[in-house]
Amino acid sequence: MTAKLGRNSYGKSNVRLVKIKRLGDRHDIRDLTVGVFFDGDYDAVHRAGDNSHCLPTDTMKNSVYALAKMKEIGEIEEFGATLVRHFMVDDPYVARIRVEIEEHPWERLVAGGWPHPHAFSRGGGGTRVATVTGTRDGLGVDAGIDDLLVLKSADSAFSGYLTDQFTTLRPTNDRILATVISARWTYADAIDIDYALAYSLARQAMLDRFGEHESQSVQHTLFAMGEAMLERVPEITSVRLTLPNKHHLLVDLSSFGLENDNEIFVPTAEPFGLIEALITRS
Amino acid sequence: MTAKLGRNSYGKSNVRLVKIKRLGDRHDIRDLTVGVFFDGDYDAVHRAGDNSHCLPTDTMKNSVYALAKMKEIGEIEEFGATLVRHFMVDDPYVARIRVEIEEHPWERLVAGGWPHPHAFSRGGGGTRVATVTGTRDGLGVDAGIDDLLVLKSADSAFSGYLTDQFTTLRPTNDRILATVISARWTYADAIDIDYALAYSLARQAMLDRFGEHESQSVQHTLFAMGEAMLERVPEITSVRLTLPNKHHLLVDLSSFGLENDNEIFVPTAEPFGLIEALITRS
Amino acid sequence: MTAKLGRNSYGKSNVRLVKIKRLGDRHDIRDLTVGVFFDGDYDAVHRAGDNSHCLPTDTMKNSVYALAKMKEIGEIEEFGATLVRHFMVDDPYVARIRVEIEEHPWERLVAGGWPHPHAFSRGGGGTRVATVTGTRDGLGVDAGIDDLLVLKSADSAFSGYLTDQFTTLRPTNDRILATVISARWTYADAIDIDYALAYSLARQAMLDRFGEHESQSVQHTLFAMGEAMLERVPEITSVRLTLPNKHHLLVDLSSFGLENDNEIFVPTAEPFGLIEALITRS
Amino acid sequence: MTAKLGRNSYGKSNVRLVKIKRLGDRHDIRDLTVGVFFDGDYDAVHRAGDNSHCLPTDTMKNSVYALAKMKEIGEIEEFGATLVRHFMVDDPYVARIRVEIEEHPWERLVAGGWPHPHAFSRGGGGTRVATVTGTRDGLGVDAGIDDLLVLKSADSAFSGYLTDQFTTLRPTNDRILATVISARWTYADAIDIDYALAYSLARQAMLDRFGEHESQSVQHTLFAMGEAMLERVPEITSVRLTLPNKHHLLVDLSSFGLENDNEIFVPTAEPFGLIEALITRS
Repeated sequence: MTAKLGRNSYGKSNVRLVKIKRLGDRHDIRDLTVGVFFDGDYDAVHRAGDNSHCLPTDTMKNSVYALAKMKEIGEIEEFGATLVRHFMVDDPYVARIRVEIEEHPWERLVAGGWPHPHAFSRGGGGTRVATVTGTRDGLGVDAGIDDLLVLKSADSAFSGYLTDQFTTLRPTNDRILATVISARWTYADAIDIDYALAYSLARQAMLDRFGEHESQSVQHTLFAMGEAMLERVPEITSVRLTLPNKHHLLVDLSSFGLENDNEIFVPTAEPFGLIEALITRS
Repeated sequence: MTAKLGRNSYGKSNVRLVKIKRLGDRHDIRDLTVGVFFDGDYDAVHRAGDNSHCLPTDTMKNSVYALAKMKEIGEIEEFGATLVRHFMVDDPYVARIRVEIEEHPWERLVAGGWPHPHAFSRGGGGTRVATVTGTRDGLGVDAGIDDLLVLKSADSAFSGYLTDQFTTLRPTNDRILATVISARWTYADAIDIDYALAYSLARQAMLDRFGEHESQSVQHTLFAMGEAMLERVPEITSVRLTLPNKHHLLVDLSSFGLENDNEIFVPTAEPFGLIEALITRS
Repeated sequence: MTAKLGRNSYGKSNVRLVKIKRLGDRHDIRDLTVGVFFDGDYDAVHRAGDNSHCLPTDTMKNSVYALAKMKEIGEIEEFGATLVRHFMVDDPYVARIRVEIEEHPWERLVAGGWPHPHAFSRGGGGTRVATVTGTRDGLGVDAGIDDLLVLKSADSAFSGYLTDQFTTLRPTNDRILATVISARWTYADAIDIDYALAYSLARQAMLDRFGEHESQSVQHTLFAMGEAMLERVPEITSVRLTLPNKHHLLVDLSSFGLENDNEIFVPTAEPFGLIEALITRS
Repeated sequence: MTAKLGRNSYGKSNVRLVKIKRLGDRHDIRDLTVGVFFDGDYDAVHRAGDNSHCLPTDTMKNSVYALAKMKEIGEIEEFGATLVRHFMVDDPYVARIRVEIEEHPWERLVAGGWPHPHAFSRGGGGTRVATVTGTRDGLGVDAGIDDLLVLKSADSAFSGYLTDQFTTLRPTNDRILATVISARWTYADAIDIDYALAYSLARQAMLDRFGEHESQSVQHTLFAMGEAMLERVPEITSVRLTLPNKHHLLVDLSSFGLENDNEIFVPTAEPFGLIEALITRS
């Protein structure tokens, strides 16, 4: 029998990087986690233990730090592109490169009513992410957000569903809808996009729609959110949303002679619903 | 040989509770994790398997939900006191009760420029906590904060320290100081304290001092932060601070002909320094 | 603009199930985490909030418990197939079902030298997993293992690799190779496979090869492990291995006048190499 | 106002260490996580930023690696004592030292039916831990175990408990008892103890008693386990056990016409009971 090498990749994950930019009157901070992954004709590496075409993952890590020093980081989509281009030029053997970046948010401390020039606290509101992929033929840019926990306590129903012999769920016109948004979207063209603006508009479109939507299900709201993002940001060609349903169960207080009119809930960690969909332009 | 029962406690941990308050024009949300722990003469429970003096932890859990319905929650210190008093009256056998509460922050979504009446996103800035303990003689109230990640990129030094044969650290006048603040403080008297105000002042005192301090070490800044809290909030009698030193190591770029003038850092997760101290009024 | 629904799925994740089988002289225990995911024409659910074709994820959860009671669980591949078939019959609208199962290992306590009839402790050696997918046309079965931490302290080298201006890694003929094996393999045909035996043979083939291999890189050992699995288990058509490189760095003790001859290491959690490949029959 | 420094400590946490011992025909591996914490008169460090009495935590880390090279590690209690004595001699200012060590278990791979000379997999059965504390007057040694998950599916009841208006729990004579054992015990005298043997006997005593006990409550079994340890290991003066009650709830299948005779359970992660007690010799 001869075994055959199929799709493969290798790289360095979780490269942690903080860059402090010392401006005249203040410091700026960037805090990133970077992953670099290579795909190519690495048959000899796998079969023969011949490493001559293999750039070590340690060198990938060094390159992230060196390029963070040599270049402006810019938006994470731009730093991703910088890294992809560097490796494409540097390494003749790699065929496809994927760079994944998360940015950990910091906010300036407000001390005595003023933003502090060099002290910060961790920000909230989700983690911005980007994935840049490149081949010899060009670049593709995806952006997104993770860990954005949201909840609405009205305008959420779930009823009229399919039933069978194992149905015990009761239909409701008024439940808590809570989820941790994870979104990934693709930009039509990697040139001349204002990534900071596009991110901000996409994020706000998603949240605005979440808030205002008359939800019949997580699926229903997911689709509406994706649609809003496509409407608001023309550069986005498609968006994939992954929404765990963070169930909030109504506590039964009837044995204590108490009525629980959608007031007291127990949030449960498991099991959880998990809803995913890709929304594209038609 | 006869074994003897020493200090013991039992209770329910991680009781998750969300309460939605339906006001005319908006909803308010409270999101708590509650722990209830009993201490008393439970010799017969342990030795003889005689449970007649043992209130089940399941009943503790039910009581949290029932009381959240029957009473105003108020500040978490107040809800803790409500629970302690309830159990003290309810159970003749318990000698000492400890209730621990964390409050998970939610912020209103801003949609179309306005705060949303019933949609929220998870807030940042650390988790507020309280511990209320009670005996037949009275209550004690501790408050605090967890998970408050802060960083300053100037005004932090570490030099002049003790050296030995295993010293390799170089003194520095300019390093990143980063930590995840965990603080617990004790109130002098559990009556007539404005807990929301005291918390807010203590937190701000801590952060103001962190920002402005000319730090010679984590210990130095820890003490200054504790001192500021005692100065700003007269009701606080002592504060315990626990500060992991989240090391940010300067990356050596010299092999690439690059100078790294306190610009590029790698944040490391382990090992980490860990600094703890209690600061009291003298 | 009209948005379009692309690939989508919904389901219930992390359904926790323990089944105790009461035999004459002993109990057997099964401890599973189950996920059930549906894919189909759910356009109306997403667009119109019409749930009439949507089986609630709560019903999926109930079905897992009910079928665990009504049927023998058997091997997890078999229970996965039981669930897929049930939902396929039960729900006329679903097109594709994916059931994912992990089995948490328990070992009998040995007390007084004998295996205990009804007391257990958590076992080691990795977590067995299976994924069964089904359509109206038939079933496909994948099996695998997660969280299998292995290390070898000899017969591992990494040298002869590509270098560039950012290379600082030194070649080595003797390093620690450590990884957490995650493997997924596909069975040729879902009928008449002895899943317990195939799993056991695949796992042992992987570990035998890991131990005996003269490793030139993680890739080299990964391929050898996959090849061994294909050789040993004819029912397997392909295997995907995901191997993080859990770096163990040699500690520099030279400043203390101590030589570190591959003896003292610091295992680091991040960054880490990440090597993935699919090995198929040619 | 003058603030006063109360109880304080500083040190290095999570120092990761792997030592490979190269014997003629095989390798042995030790894998430890070490923490070193100092307590003393560090008033000037905290108040004045005077570090002259402060041994950096970086030096603590270096010392762990250097001593791991220079000395036999031996049992973790012995390596803890080695570290405490080193720092006590090395640093004139420290008053009290605490060294905490966990040992991560590795088992030899069995390949072709034989234990492999230099390949290992992660072992199960809990993590052995030790804490050595020292002052100028001597040493104290605690040992223990963490993360030992056990379950029994018979001989566990909970009934006859105190009830009130919020009781809904039903008494049971047959429930699953599951917990993650965390134990810490103190040795009478740090000299001439066979730590490996004492650990092994204490652990086995605990597990034997867990298996055989006719449990009326977690407290009841906790006490019995502690008592067994004191009986079996004369060098132990006291033991503290911390036992979360990992609830396994009976699933209600009655709506589906199915009887669930203690067969199908859902293990829940939160909330959980938490039972702690110290058992001493009387």
